[in-house]
Amino acid sequence: MSEGENTELEAVAELAKRRGFFFQSSGAYGGVSGFYTYGPEGAALKRNLEDAWRDRFVTREGHMEVSAPDVMPEPVFEASGHLDGFDDMILECPECGESHRADHLVEDNSDVEDAEAIPIEEVQEMIADLGLTCPTCGADLAGEPVEEFNLMFETNIGPGSSQPGYLRPETAQGIFVEFPRLKEYARGQLPFGVAQVGNAYRNEISPRRALVRVREFTQAELEHFIDPEEDEPPIERVADVELPLYSAENQNGEGGIEYLTVREALDEDVVGSEWVAFYLGLAKGWYERVGVDMDRFRYRQHLSGERAHYAVDCWDAEAELGGDWVEITGFAYRSDYDLSKHAAHSDGDFTLFKQYDEPKTVERPTVDPDMSVLGPEYGDVAGDIREELQLLAERDPEAFEADTVQVTVDGEEYGVDTDVANFAVEEETEAGEHITPHVVEPSFGVGRLVYTVLTHAYGEDEVDGERRSYLQVPTELAPTFVCVAPLVSNDDPLVERAESVRERLREAGFEVDYDDSGSIGRRYRRQDEVGTPFCVTVDHETLERDDYDAETVTLRDRDSTEQARVPAADLPELLADLQAGDATFDALLDRGDVHRV
Amino acid sequence: MSEGENTELEAVAELAKRRGFFFQSSGAYGGVSGFYTYGPEGAALKRNLEDAWRDRFVTREGHMEVSAPDVMPEPVFEASGHLDGFDDMILECPECGESHRADHLVEDNSDVEDAEAIPIEEVQEMIADLGLTCPTCGADLAGEPVEEFNLMFETNIGPGSSQPGYLRPETAQGIFVEFPRLKEYARGQLPFGVAQVGNAYRNEISPRRALVRVREFTQAELEHFIDPEEDEPPIERVADVELPLYSAENQNGEGGIEYLTVREALDEDVVGSEWVAFYLGLAKGWYERVGVDMDRFRYRQHLSGERAHYAVDCWDAEAELGGDWVEITGFAYRSDYDLSKHAAHSDGDFTLFKQYDEPKTVERPTVDPDMSVLGPEYGDVAGDIREELQLLAERDPEAFEADTVQVTVDGEEYGVDTDVANFAVEEETEAGEHITPHVVEPSFGVGRLVYTVLTHAYGEDEVDGERRSYLQVPTELAPTFVCVAPLVSNDDPLVERAESVRERLREAGFEVDYDDSGSIGRRYRRQDEVGTPFCVTVDHETLERDDYDAETVTLRDRDSTEQARVPAADLPELLADLQAGDATFDALLDRGDVHRV
Repeated sequence: MSEGENTELEAVAELAKRRGFFFQSSGAYGGVSGFYTYGPEGAALKRNLEDAWRDRFVTREGHMEVSAPDVMPEPVFEASGHLDGFDDMILECPECGESHRADHLVEDNSDVEDAEAIPIEEVQEMIADLGLTCPTCGADLAGEPVEEFNLMFETNIGPGSSQPGYLRPETAQGIFVEFPRLKEYARGQLPFGVAQVGNAYRNEISPRRALVRVREFTQAELEHFIDPEEDEPPIERVADVELPLYSAENQNGEGGIEYLTVREALDEDVVGSEWVAFYLGLAKGWYERVGVDMDRFRYRQHLSGERAHYAVDCWDAEAELGGDWVEITGFAYRSDYDLSKHAAHSDGDFTLFKQYDEPKTVERPTVDPDMSVLGPEYGDVAGDIREELQLLAERDPEAFEADTVQVTVDGEEYGVDTDVANFAVEEETEAGEHITPHVVEPSFGVGRLVYTVLTHAYGEDEVDGERRSYLQVPTELAPTFVCVAPLVSNDDPLVERAESVRERLREAGFEVDYDDSGSIGRRYRRQDEVGTPFCVTVDHETLERDDYDAETVTLRDRDSTEQARVPAADLPELLADLQAGDATFDALLDRGDVHRV
Repeated sequence: MSEGENTELEAVAELAKRRGFFFQSSGAYGGVSGFYTYGPEGAALKRNLEDAWRDRFVTREGHMEVSAPDVMPEPVFEASGHLDGFDDMILECPECGESHRADHLVEDNSDVEDAEAIPIEEVQEMIADLGLTCPTCGADLAGEPVEEFNLMFETNIGPGSSQPGYLRPETAQGIFVEFPRLKEYARGQLPFGVAQVGNAYRNEISPRRALVRVREFTQAELEHFIDPEEDEPPIERVADVELPLYSAENQNGEGGIEYLTVREALDEDVVGSEWVAFYLGLAKGWYERVGVDMDRFRYRQHLSGERAHYAVDCWDAEAELGGDWVEITGFAYRSDYDLSKHAAHSDGDFTLFKQYDEPKTVERPTVDPDMSVLGPEYGDVAGDIREELQLLAERDPEAFEADTVQVTVDGEEYGVDTDVANFAVEEETEAGEHITPHVVEPSFGVGRLVYTVLTHAYGEDEVDGERRSYLQVPTELAPTFVCVAPLVSNDDPLVERAESVRERLREAGFEVDYDDSGSIGRRYRRQDEVGTPFCVTVDHETLERDDYDAETVTLRDRDSTEQARVPAADLPELLADLQAGDATFDALLDRGDVHRV
């Protein structure tokens, strides 16, 4: 990690706190690790990011979006595997009692990059071999037990005879458990996608790195349910998108990032799943749209030991932050793991009926035992014998070629005359079959994306001899779209006119800030720092005109810091064009009624 | 409750489940009381409702919006009063062990309307006097203890030496605890408002009535921080809005709902607080906008026993659902209760410095004791004596008119020469003072509003001899804005053209559904039922034209069920006008290039 990179993250953290993007929660009470509050600027940026995600991955793709509760009952996580398997390695210092993540201790003090994938006993040995000490108090940690710690927050639902509940560790389960109903909304037709933007919770042992490892966070997940035998993604839509791929093979060997188109990545078998490749392609354009710097971005394939318990193939989108690569999205082919687990643990029907193109004729061996013979002969056991005969017919029809067949009930053998069994092979016509869909999942970490966008958008320069810091966030994401200001704040007519411009722009639906404090230059810096693309200033020239239709105001551009004088009456339309990307600030300057200031 | 009203709620519940508005969560596992999942239609409607709220109460008012965590540490709720006071009355059946809300048992079996406000011992007596039995098993409940049950969900934060955490029971606390930082973002100027839309959690003893009493729900809360001595709401903006008011006085007496304008309500002292009255006026227009039926709506004042522990004056907005009045918003004047509590319990500064218009000169009595005299005379106690002299000077300056003054330290009296005390009255200039702002809070229950909007929008009629059920939700709230359909699904050119219309409308940013299954009439019914305002159908006449610019499609209006043939190329513009309310379907029919079908 170079010094320059640290400085960038420090500057972003300072800005985030001072200007209201995000900060540790409950600071008046000393704060709580791993919990962050989004201030006014951050909450707006986060919401805009979620809207941009929804537009791209839900609305335009015609998928559904649901909203399920954060608290879910225990059986859900018994089925999903989280109750048993969702653990981190914990090591408690014998001296000071502080808990540490054992894998992080190893990573921080060796060249090991993914200690999470190493068996727990080996990690314990490595801690002894490396001679690691407690980062808090310095006590020797050799020989201390490394244990599994479940990351789910537990609570109790209801009073008295309450049942255990958990804060969901991923939003996905809220979709999977409702599949029996969701398939109805999709009218039983595959493929279909169900998305959710919501909170997830992980009781991290050592939260760290601001929004990177927190205990409560927002996920934007899409579960795309497909028929693995029939459904193919519309790969042609993204075939030519170039992907920066860091394959497992290259991570294990000496190779670095390869730049391949989606088509090439599939042809060369670097990405194994067409569906995963489709989403890598679709997402890349979206990352660019929301301002992730493509020079600080890669897709990294999971190493075999690293994959989650459900994943068949997995790639992460990673962004470089302060010299570290941080996962911002996981793309997983989860196969039928989740739906099958819930089917096995619950009463729900997690299958879909898949109609054959043409009905199929199948041979089905059956028996129709003569119960007037079996009944008197075997009494209570006769029913069981009938069932065993049917199972035998399906398993081994040839057994009925002999004169008698043998079946076993409760450990006892019974011989039955083949004639009495009435064995036959019937032909049946089947219209289709029940299948369990597979799932492709792009799972976005919203907080990490917010952090990435802020960091990649952050810049410093000098304007008119003064140091300026700014956020070059895309217009779509900017917390405030336009700030209105009177040139000076002690001039009543100016203030009045500025307030009326502000109201008019709010009525038109823009996110408008208003600032009348300090010099106009200082106000511009303040807006640059929170990424406001445009500022409108009402000055004395505005007031020279006697009617609103003739008034002009200045419009300032964040990125170029240039200013233009524009007709006030046209502001809503001009700003709408700038917001929609239908016009650039430069293009504005070509209009007859606009001139550079 | 009349039969007709029950039928309405039953129809809405059936529709909600079947079409994906909302349903009890984890149904495959038998469901969990009080937890609901919003399906695709409901999640969209809820999101649109939240956006409409944000537009009205945040954006247009220039307030801030934050997003704080759901999990908060224990000291926050020690301060807020929730740890001690946020209880419901619980009674456990001695036979079957089922827990009941004692106040609900009384309400359901007597004329008592607000048993929650009755002391717990009296409720226990009433249960005996009324001879109430367990609704589950029929056991006699007389004499069974009624106890307090805290409604917060508890969990543990962190491993090992973990600390207790709670799921917040109201989003408001996430705003209050961050006031020391939020005031900086407001540049220290009152008044300012901070909003939050997020989840809150209450471990209800008996969840009931669908989305009315649930354990996890969404709140949209605005905390408006004001200087109670100086700040006044812009009451003139809402002065003429007519409010349906059901005052505490009328609830106690024989009176009913009075219709008064905001101005009249204040003049006649029906509403005591100008700020509360302002929000009653502002909110009324918003309820109309989102489709709350004004014939099934009222503002009800809290009775004195009913107010929350923090509230000074409180009104609820209530909607009639199935014959019951349900609170959908609480309007509370919370005074400085919350900020003062957090100030007392934490290290944060919850005050604002309020600058006087002109600096004030104040007389400040002081002492400046001659320690070269006190020191040798009193030794260790000299310092304490100095402090006591200062306190005495502030408390009783006239005491220094005598030759000696008496002070007490640790129960012992000391006489000090007035000359040695060096008493003087100094004039000081103060620029301002530190004040703790008051809070006005409109708190909206989003789930209850969704339920209200659905119920009030639900209707049934007959079209072309067929029974139709429909949702007449405002266009702004409709989950799907427009549905595109090919007239028949087995005609490739028709399907292709319809899909291209769908893509074009999605690109234009509309929420678009696509439906090609069943007769066109059936598809219209299906859209009516989920409140889709418009349907576009591509038919054979569309294909008659040879280029896109000349193509026409039919556009159908949900409410009138009328259809018009319109130019396909103009669709995005026409629909945008209809969405923005700039045009009505009727007005469309007057255009030269549009004709009724």
